[in-house]
Amino acid sequence: MELIKGGVCAPKGFRANGVLCGIKANRTKPDVALIVSDVPCSAAAVYTTNLVKGAPLTVTKAHLANGTAQAVICNSGNANTCNANGIEIAQGMCDLVQTHLGIDANDVIVGSTGVIGQPLSLAPIEKGMAALTAGLSYTGSDQAAQAIMTTDTRAKELAVTFTAGGKTCHMGGIAKGSGMIHPNMATMLVFITTDAAISPQLLQKALSQDVASTFNMLSIDGDTSTNDMVTVLANGLAGNEEICQEGEDFSAFMQALNTVTVQLCRMIAGDGEGATKLLQCCVTGADTLENAKLCAKSVICSSLLKAAMFGADANWGRVLCAIGYSGAKVDTGKIGVAFRSAKGTVTVCEKGSGVPFSEENAKEILLEPEIDILVDLGSGDISATAWGCDLTYDYVKINGDYRT
Amino acid sequence: MELIKGGVCAPKGFRANGVLCGIKANRTKPDVALIVSDVPCSAAAVYTTNLVKGAPLTVTKAHLANGTAQAVICNSGNANTCNANGIEIAQGMCDLVQTHLGIDANDVIVGSTGVIGQPLSLAPIEKGMAALTAGLSYTGSDQAAQAIMTTDTRAKELAVTFTAGGKTCHMGGIAKGSGMIHPNMATMLVFITTDAAISPQLLQKALSQDVASTFNMLSIDGDTSTNDMVTVLANGLAGNEEICQEGEDFSAFMQALNTVTVQLCRMIAGDGEGATKLLQCCVTGADTLENAKLCAKSVICSSLLKAAMFGADANWGRVLCAIGYSGAKVDTGKIGVAFRSAKGTVTVCEKGSGVPFSEENAKEILLEPEIDILVDLGSGDISATAWGCDLTYDYVKINGDYRT
Repeated sequence: MELIKGGVCAPKGFRANGVLCGIKANRTKPDVALIVSDVPCSAAAVYTTNLVKGAPLTVTKAHLANGTAQAVICNSGNANTCNANGIEIAQGMCDLVQTHLGIDANDVIVGSTGVIGQPLSLAPIEKGMAALTAGLSYTGSDQAAQAIMTTDTRAKELAVTFTAGGKTCHMGGIAKGSGMIHPNMATMLVFITTDAAISPQLLQKALSQDVASTFNMLSIDGDTSTNDMVTVLANGLAGNEEICQEGEDFSAFMQALNTVTVQLCRMIAGDGEGATKLLQCCVTGADTLENAKLCAKSVICSSLLKAAMFGADANWGRVLCAIGYSGAKVDTGKIGVAFRSAKGTVTVCEKGSGVPFSEENAKEILLEPEIDILVDLGSGDISATAWGCDLTYDYVKINGDYRT
Repeated sequence: MELIKGGVCAPKGFRANGVLCGIKANRTKPDVALIVSDVPCSAAAVYTTNLVKGAPLTVTKAHLANGTAQAVICNSGNANTCNANGIEIAQGMCDLVQTHLGIDANDVIVGSTGVIGQPLSLAPIEKGMAALTAGLSYTGSDQAAQAIMTTDTRAKELAVTFTAGGKTCHMGGIAKGSGMIHPNMATMLVFITTDAAISPQLLQKALSQDVASTFNMLSIDGDTSTNDMVTVLANGLAGNEEICQEGEDFSAFMQALNTVTVQLCRMIAGDGEGATKLLQCCVTGADTLENAKLCAKSVICSSLLKAAMFGADANWGRVLCAIGYSGAKVDTGKIGVAFRSAKGTVTVCEKGSGVPFSEENAKEILLEPEIDILVDLGSGDISATAWGCDLTYDYVKINGDYRT
């Protein structure tokens, strides 16, 4: 497997574009994204478990009921959620794709991200459709990635190659992250494409298995969004024999998918709202996967620890505290904690109690932009990883007046 | 029932004091508190459910096993948690009370609050004991309240009178709040005294029942502390017939207790770390108490909503979002939301969708220091209230480098 450029257009037969339709005032970046496969695709998705669901998710779920799709349309600047006419508007976006590209509206995935509870007008999207479809390109991933950004400071995309059935396959993804991110059984806005041939059933299985250890282990601010969704389109143009059962090819596919999703998780966490640091909590020595995950996620979600990391303060008591209220069944007298970055590793706690360490050394390590919080539960050989970011002045600033 | 002055010394026969022992550098306020009853008391307590428990809680739990106690000693500046010799030090604090006042060490409640994982030395407390005991006074509540403050900006105390068995009784309390507050089945550091006579069993019942709707419905930052504890001492000096069963007197006692605890909740929430606003979420129209509580607490805990309240931004979509991921079983199409303060009330959502409102009016309402977030679930007649505060730059500042 190899990292390559090209994002969602790295796989054969996928075109993408993003244009500025003017959904929200003062935006200069594109705000509507379109991804289209040359041929129909196996399709799979996972959705937020928030009871308040964006209308686009309801429409997408219906369109994916048959396991196939061919295009993704997604706007930023408005979540199209908690609006009386939300379903109608979301369906309208799919209809626009049918009108302009001849793809059945039922084969379109639709997403929206932005403010909740403000009516979304179809008019600006309708007006922008000619430019959006005319500009579709086999190198257009970056425009699409830009169009789904909200408070993200960086577009998020990557791609990999892998081998299945003796054929070289490609997989690429784009993501929108930043705020209201605390996936629960599903995840945030991520669109993945691949030219591998895989049945809808296996594709859904691969995605559902993967998110359990990737996007579900990511938290920016503890707020599970109403519009979270990850979709995968697989168009089969790599020419491999269709993956219809578990085995070597499915494993290769899973590995490629995991590479894409872990990297997108890290990109989303590192560019969390206001973030100055990517935090990764690696829990080892657990007796069960559930305990490992509960601890890793609890540490990553602690406001106090997040603020301490912003201040490069090795306040490991907050790590112990977060493990203690995580719900995990652990022996607190066996816990070890260390902080690691490009500048080295400092051990701060062993067997549940503090050990002497150099504050100066710890500060140097914690001033780096990527920090690993290493927790050893000392009770087994199971591990789990969670991703997040620090809590900063800018998080408060960004969210103190997001709507205007 | 009437609010009175005097804090924990308002009830007959309680003396208190607080002195500066120098547990942490640069402190100018007292840092060790002592509360003493003239006679032995019925005693009850609730403790944090965090698996990582401060050593003082373990010692206090043992001392309260027989339902009686006579004194409270508590230091700030160091939590005495995750220290190998923690139990020994906590017991040592109780022994100091026995040495200086002749009260059995087993009748002493001990608490500590401050940094986790730094060894606590008994020496400064030992040195300060002569002044601490010599200064005990029937008007000393404020000194004790000051001594347990950490990042609190205001000392928190109040008292009430009530009638039981035809006698005028008194109840008072002090609290330390501010950060690492997200009580779970127990609560933060609160010491309550009363001169009512009540059996240990009924006292524990009253406290356990009360915290379910008071301290357990309070959150500053979602971090359940390792050192949370609420204790009540009842010395019987009011002369009422001992309350040994439920009935009129027990109800009067419960009502007084609830008045004290709700007010302390509001004080703690309004003075949360970095807070500029007290937030109160009142959920009505629920079908079950569990659903009402889940919704109220989820709204109060949402970082995004807390930041919006800091910015006086009527971003009600975040209220809906928090209800949606709360775990409560609700019909999202029936939810109504309004914001209320001393400046009036503005309705922003009905039946799950937005309604037109004046942004100017909403801003004026949300600029007030006490905000009620009113949620009507439209599905029954059960209600619940939760308390919290806004998320501000100062929360990040305070917690970015708390240890130094």
